[in-house]
Amino acid sequence: MENWQESVYSDGTAMFVSNPSPRLGETVTVSLRLYDGAPVRHVILRWLRNGLVQMAHARKVRVERGLAWYEAEMPITERRMQYQFYLVTDEAVWFYTQKGISTCMPDHSCDFVLLTDYVQPAWVKEAVFYQIFPERFCNGDPANDVQPGEYAQDGHPTIHMDWEAAPLAYEQGFCLDFFGGDLQGIRQKIPYLKELGVTALYLNPIFRAPSVHKYDCVDYFHVDPHFGGDEALAELSKALHENGMKLILDISINHTGANHRWFNRDGMFFDKSTGAYNNPGAEERDYYFFGPGNAYHAWFGNQNLPTLNYTSQALRDVVYQAQDSVLRKWLKPPYSIDGWRFDVADTFARNDDIQLSHEVWPEIRRAIREENPQAYILAEDWGDCAQYMQGDEWDSPMSYFTCGRPIRQFFGQDDHFLEHDPVLRGLPCKMTAADLKERVVQHLAKMPWAMWENQFNLFDSHDISRLHNDPAISPMAWRGAVYFQFILTGAASIYYGDEAAVDGTLGTNEGCRYPMPWGRDFTGGEQYRVCRTMAHLKHDHSALSRGGMKFLCAQGYTAAIARFTEDEAFVAVINSDDKDACIRLPLGAVGAAGLKDTDVMGEKLSWRPLDENSVELTVPAGKNYFIQCQMK
Amino acid sequence: MENWQESVYSDGTAMFVSNPSPRLGETVTVSLRLYDGAPVRHVILRWLRNGLVQMAHARKVRVERGLAWYEAEMPITERRMQYQFYLVTDEAVWFYTQKGISTCMPDHSCDFVLLTDYVQPAWVKEAVFYQIFPERFCNGDPANDVQPGEYAQDGHPTIHMDWEAAPLAYEQGFCLDFFGGDLQGIRQKIPYLKELGVTALYLNPIFRAPSVHKYDCVDYFHVDPHFGGDEALAELSKALHENGMKLILDISINHTGANHRWFNRDGMFFDKSTGAYNNPGAEERDYYFFGPGNAYHAWFGNQNLPTLNYTSQALRDVVYQAQDSVLRKWLKPPYSIDGWRFDVADTFARNDDIQLSHEVWPEIRRAIREENPQAYILAEDWGDCAQYMQGDEWDSPMSYFTCGRPIRQFFGQDDHFLEHDPVLRGLPCKMTAADLKERVVQHLAKMPWAMWENQFNLFDSHDISRLHNDPAISPMAWRGAVYFQFILTGAASIYYGDEAAVDGTLGTNEGCRYPMPWGRDFTGGEQYRVCRTMAHLKHDHSALSRGGMKFLCAQGYTAAIARFTEDEAFVAVINSDDKDACIRLPLGAVGAAGLKDTDVMGEKLSWRPLDENSVELTVPAGKNYFIQCQMK
Repeated sequence: MENWQESVYSDGTAMFVSNPSPRLGETVTVSLRLYDGAPVRHVILRWLRNGLVQMAHARKVRVERGLAWYEAEMPITERRMQYQFYLVTDEAVWFYTQKGISTCMPDHSCDFVLLTDYVQPAWVKEAVFYQIFPERFCNGDPANDVQPGEYAQDGHPTIHMDWEAAPLAYEQGFCLDFFGGDLQGIRQKIPYLKELGVTALYLNPIFRAPSVHKYDCVDYFHVDPHFGGDEALAELSKALHENGMKLILDISINHTGANHRWFNRDGMFFDKSTGAYNNPGAEERDYYFFGPGNAYHAWFGNQNLPTLNYTSQALRDVVYQAQDSVLRKWLKPPYSIDGWRFDVADTFARNDDIQLSHEVWPEIRRAIREENPQAYILAEDWGDCAQYMQGDEWDSPMSYFTCGRPIRQFFGQDDHFLEHDPVLRGLPCKMTAADLKERVVQHLAKMPWAMWENQFNLFDSHDISRLHNDPAISPMAWRGAVYFQFILTGAASIYYGDEAAVDGTLGTNEGCRYPMPWGRDFTGGEQYRVCRTMAHLKHDHSALSRGGMKFLCAQGYTAAIARFTEDEAFVAVINSDDKDACIRLPLGAVGAAGLKDTDVMGEKLSWRPLDENSVELTVPAGKNYFIQCQMK
Repeated sequence: MENWQESVYSDGTAMFVSNPSPRLGETVTVSLRLYDGAPVRHVILRWLRNGLVQMAHARKVRVERGLAWYEAEMPITERRMQYQFYLVTDEAVWFYTQKGISTCMPDHSCDFVLLTDYVQPAWVKEAVFYQIFPERFCNGDPANDVQPGEYAQDGHPTIHMDWEAAPLAYEQGFCLDFFGGDLQGIRQKIPYLKELGVTALYLNPIFRAPSVHKYDCVDYFHVDPHFGGDEALAELSKALHENGMKLILDISINHTGANHRWFNRDGMFFDKSTGAYNNPGAEERDYYFFGPGNAYHAWFGNQNLPTLNYTSQALRDVVYQAQDSVLRKWLKPPYSIDGWRFDVADTFARNDDIQLSHEVWPEIRRAIREENPQAYILAEDWGDCAQYMQGDEWDSPMSYFTCGRPIRQFFGQDDHFLEHDPVLRGLPCKMTAADLKERVVQHLAKMPWAMWENQFNLFDSHDISRLHNDPAISPMAWRGAVYFQFILTGAASIYYGDEAAVDGTLGTNEGCRYPMPWGRDFTGGEQYRVCRTMAHLKHDHSALSRGGMKFLCAQGYTAAIARFTEDEAFVAVINSDDKDACIRLPLGAVGAAGLKDTDVMGEKLSWRPLDENSVELTVPAGKNYFIQCQMK
């Protein structure tokens, strides 16, 4: 039998591990499956105990849907259990880890990992998130709107925009163009969100701050009055939970606004006799990095955003350690949020010779989890963050690195980081499917499986131009991006307005924060239909939340990724080829025999069987598919 | 120009980094070179500062030997500086890290790394080590020999073997077959070792212990009297240093012998009124793991080797923290050793729920380096140990994982770890050159370059059958293994007696500890000639100690690895093909134009130029070469 290697599979789901969250002292059964009939004489489970190699021969226990299942027992003796598989043929020993199968003995960087002391926020993998930039979503209570001139500064007036006329008038000021969105508005739209299929909200910052984005917070302890104040949050949280929905809030504890109560540079909100900037003796002075001449360290040099200094224990106390600290307050009733999204987490608690991130994050995690053991710890990081993803720091990054950045590049956009440099901008870097696969696998393979299931998969957000606003992105490519975020393990996040094909411009953050066009009926549009279809599909099929994940194909510019349980399987075909492609799909590897006749959006499929374990699918240029399989 | 990617190169040597050991606040110049004429429009240096991406455009500063050099400046702002290179062509952005060049944006796992607070034991990369199992090397003072019956136990008499008749009579007892080797004997052989080209000794344990191997230590504070006592060590150290040679000692601080002064189970050396085993109130009781019924934890369950418990601060004090602690004593005059080799370091300070290794190793490192800033910290680990190799724990493992294990498998032996399992034993696993390359690169690429230069490259030791005793290993294959250990970055270690083709048996540790056959003239033999030639070649050519390293070819069963400075280059051709092979060597990538006519052992070479940057070399079946290049 050729190609048997393509069928070898295991992961950290309950399909393959008898207890994915075991305790010390337990013994778990670990499974692997592959084509029945593969020329594999032995399967060996190989793990480490106190750094020493342990091996157990796996037993062939059953054959189902053409796949032979092997099992072996592994005693759970350490907090972190790392394992690999050895597969023995007459010719060679093959080694199988999370990065794949090879005859080269691998190092431990991509081992399968079980953690004993990690509590997964189990609801995340089932979730369809909806990210809301609150000022721009819905004005539920015009009485709390910012008043004209209220925050005027530097000659830029506060502008109160006309919601419906927005796209024309927008982007005149800077972060002071108020549209009146508030928490009451979000609450009013819960029925809309439920209909769309949303189960969890991620709100950009809502604590008191003068700007529309509110990353320049002046008081972490109160919701901005223009968003409805603390009471509106309590009401929103209650209403969401009554509707079975979760809520996470965004916060930057890396820096405050310059007019934060603790810093209070300008006396804008608080009397200048308080705060660190004007009072060198203030107790908050140590919360910041002050230098000669009252100079201070600020995020990216932005003097409106002074950086917090976590060498201060008092700061740690007020932010997360004390019972009445910032992070704990909002996790407790009546707010009862379900997690935190941390702004600029990649650079948090780091200032050249002061590198405290791996000391502070575990403390933050413990504090949060004391309040809510299922709270989601979502961190802004655009790059490789595997070191934070080992169970004691974050649950997930904003998954730009494995989802948003590669899928955008795959469909022809400049990479968001490369485009900052003029010589890297606009290069015709057509990404192959092999590179797309490598981008996903290289990162996820370095995390325990539990983290694969926590991924916050997105391509649009408040920090990057909306994909559909790029004229080079076809509707079908956009659909492919949605398919990609829904086929990957973890949650998918829809950025508010994507389902409405909301207007926007390219190249600035403001351009992706246009107000929601409630006056227009967009529920009949293509993007609404794709989002709603995928959200409900995810709810209806556990393969898309609890299933395994496997690349079935990475050929030219066409990738095929499967999600599957023992009883169902889906394949997303992500394609950017400008010519028709014929791809071989080894469906047997997921226990499937064929494809349905149309994909989930009703696209007709052209496929034929090749052999007992594979089919050939014709993928016309530019087409993307999300397909349910016929099981064996 | 095709194949330009093969020429892209940088590393952490002074060739490519203006200061490989920079301090915080410095700015270093980082270089990269590639074929002049490559279609690369821009070279960008990309690093992280506090987790955020920084980029600098590199300038093309010169062309030498056909290679264009690019330079950019990087400010050293953190203890650990990680960087990559971006290379821009008209078609794509290429990413270059320690694992190679790719169009797929890499994660950070294989970044180039500079460390600010790491002091490299700079002598190691220049060293040719010679490992001695002291009891079997040379009997310099018969007056201190173990007496017949002295350590008799369990019906196995102490056997005092006849040195010359050894191979016939050996392996009758177990670890009690004494041949009388001692430190005086080693001292007497210093002229022999210098002539061979040895510059550093690694001695297996010498502290007081009943067995021949002395891993069952009874007193860390004294050299065994049968090896000559403390005074003999002081004399040996003095003599070695007078001859410009270094000395490192072996110790197991993971466990003691059951008859160690601290444990004293049997009263064999010390009165039973002392020691932890017989006196539950003894202060040493906490040094060990005692359970109900006076049971105790022991290494691999071997009751003669009770495991030490590093939750005890008192133990940490006596082993390394206190000024008069074990590790410090021998680093101070008059012993003044140049480093420690730590036995079973992979499992050290680890006992299931107690995982202290990454807490204790940094403490050990600080203690050692306080005594001798250039001391070498060499740790026994047979597998992936990249996590210990980041600057604050070890300087090197015993490099079985990147050197000994792969080269043995490449030449057809069972892997030492796989052969423990009956179904993995004896499989015909012929290793490809690509796998050999991957075995080396996957591990080294995850370490800072300074660690590449510290590697303790070996294939034989006191723990694995001597390669030349395997009848399946041809003299030419053995030569290839030596070439491999000498071409890799770091030190090469010759195991005593390899140069003498000493007898031995396969499959047991005793089989690789046969006594040195001083009565036989082996200096005219092939193995002596290979070892001496390679040792002196290393001393005579800085490319082999301070040079870069690059795989030039990995084709079928033939690998070619280059070491080079700007002014010289060598290529080792490691070949296990059973057919003649023709390989393409892109010598231009190391600034070379061709090969010499014979290799360093006098083998005639058949090669011809292919184009301006490459030659074709014919490698007859089973041949291995070590070749000096002709530079452009």
